[in-house]
Amino acid sequence: MRTRYLEDFTVGETFRTAAFTFDAEEIIEFARLYDPQTFHIDPVAAQKGPFKGLVASGFHTVARQFRAWLDLGLLEKSSLGGPGIDELRWIAPVRPGDTITTEVEILKIRKSRSRPDRGVLHYSMIGYNQRSEPVISMLNVTFVRRRDANSEG
Amino acid sequence: MRTRYLEDFTVGETFRTAAFTFDAEEIIEFARLYDPQTFHIDPVAAQKGPFKGLVASGFHTVARQFRAWLDLGLLEKSSLGGPGIDELRWIAPVRPGDTITTEVEILKIRKSRSRPDRGVLHYSMIGYNQRSEPVISMLNVTFVRRRDANSEG
Repeated sequence: MRTRYLEDFTVGETFRTAAFTFDAEEIIEFARLYDPQTFHIDPVAAQKGPFKGLVASGFHTVARQFRAWLDLGLLEKSSLGGPGIDELRWIAPVRPGDTITTEVEILKIRKSRSRPDRGVLHYSMIGYNQRSEPVISMLNVTFVRRRDANSEG
Repeated sequence: MRTRYLEDFTVGETFRTAAFTFDAEEIIEFARLYDPQTFHIDPVAAQKGPFKGLVASGFHTVARQFRAWLDLGLLEKSSLGGPGIDELRWIAPVRPGDTITTEVEILKIRKSRSRPDRGVLHYSMIGYNQRSEPVISMLNVTFVRRRDANSEG
């Protein structure tokens, strides 16, 4: 898809990311750096842990989901970063071999009063595994350029 | 510090992580995988971007901060994972060379009604840079084992 500016989004509009699969190697590599708990880095010990097996770090899942959203290309020229995330929930474990697809819904679009070149895009992101079970959800916000402020619009 | 179980925490108690420094190489490496926006991966192009220079992905900052919290060792044997995060805010950019220290405050401790071996620990995490400016804040929740449910307690 091509870049969209603030005016190009509509409340209620939905998008679906490409599917992305977690493998044990990537789960362990991420967690060794950022979340080295036994159930994220040691497949053998994890069998006796709270998830009865290796699971992806929630920080890994949320970042990988955001990557899939970026890969749609909608914000490629228009993103100005984001102020934060609300109600991030890790609903179910993500295990090696699980394939996630994320649904994005536009919830609110607001022009900035103080900065006429941009606005604020609010959207939900819910990731579902290959059994259509939700595994992660969050409310995300991105600052997005306005079309009329950009010559390439 | 040694592992703490649920009963070992007190509301209002605070902890401070070791300082951690971001360098451009790690910022770019993380963002190429999980948040490949120009201002996270291209130091030259980032000069003309919204942050006037390279900045760390917010997903990188939040994960690195959590790592620093784990490194205190308090939850090493007692963590059972977490259900999510609320009010995650990226307050100010984190740039190469910035050094962050995170303050953690215990906000709420609740025993699980349905599972007597555990409880729920609520805490805030606020990361400050080398100029004592807050750069990231969030409300985190971890499921924590109870001492009396553990023979090694």
